[in-house]
Amino acid sequence: MPVSDAETSLDAAIVARLKRTPDGLVAAIVQEHGTGEVLMLAWMDAEALHRTLTTGRATYWSRSRQEYWVKGATSGHHQSVRRVALDCDGDALLVTVEQTGAACHTGAHNCFSDELPVSALEAR
Amino acid sequence: MPVSDAETSLDAAIVARLKRTPDGLVAAIVQEHGTGEVLMLAWMDAEALHRTLTTGRATYWSRSRQEYWVKGATSGHHQSVRRVALDCDGDALLVTVEQTGAACHTGAHNCFSDELPVSALEAR
Repeated sequence: MPVSDAETSLDAAIVARLKRTPDGLVAAIVQEHGTGEVLMLAWMDAEALHRTLTTGRATYWSRSRQEYWVKGATSGHHQSVRRVALDCDGDALLVTVEQTGAACHTGAHNCFSDELPVSALEAR
Repeated sequence: MPVSDAETSLDAAIVARLKRTPDGLVAAIVQEHGTGEVLMLAWMDAEALHRTLTTGRATYWSRSRQEYWVKGATSGHHQSVRRVALDCDGDALLVTVEQTGAACHTGAHNCFSDELPVSALEAR
């Protein structure tokens, strides 16, 4: 499990603005600085956000491994954080990064290569 | 609650690729066609995705109201869907739209105006 709010060092005023999923997470949209390309979606709890804001290295909570991970720690594909913004209802973050190498574990530059058919487009 | 997988008309092959939160949802990142601006984050269950793909109008599941909502149904600020892509692990969608008016209920063009301090930037 992510650490509790009592254990995190994230500013309490920011913690109070987060609206989390039942498992304690907010969605982090990762966008590439300069190109505007949306690279991936990851998850943060309060502590991952604290680490991201204070180290400048994008740090997430892995839902599959149930642990913190610094992006690039094993792959070398780091994300240097330029800007973090919280959305109006507190359940999403927009993280603007400088991406080293590929953002996706498949080796693709971003994670959104699986296009779904929008059937309404055919009718236009 | 969102409708069950048995009740949705979404293609079973797509349903099988979705990795949902404990409350049955995937995150939908909404990006503006042309500008690349990230407008908002919303949530979809399988049925909301089905309606989005078949109508071309962005349709979400509201976590706060616990109901489906067609973006713009009350505000007039519709989103016409150009592309939908699923990410590599099935827990996020990237929805590319043509946005009419403001995407945010606050009247701002996007929902990410609440910038958080990245203290590491000061040390660079």
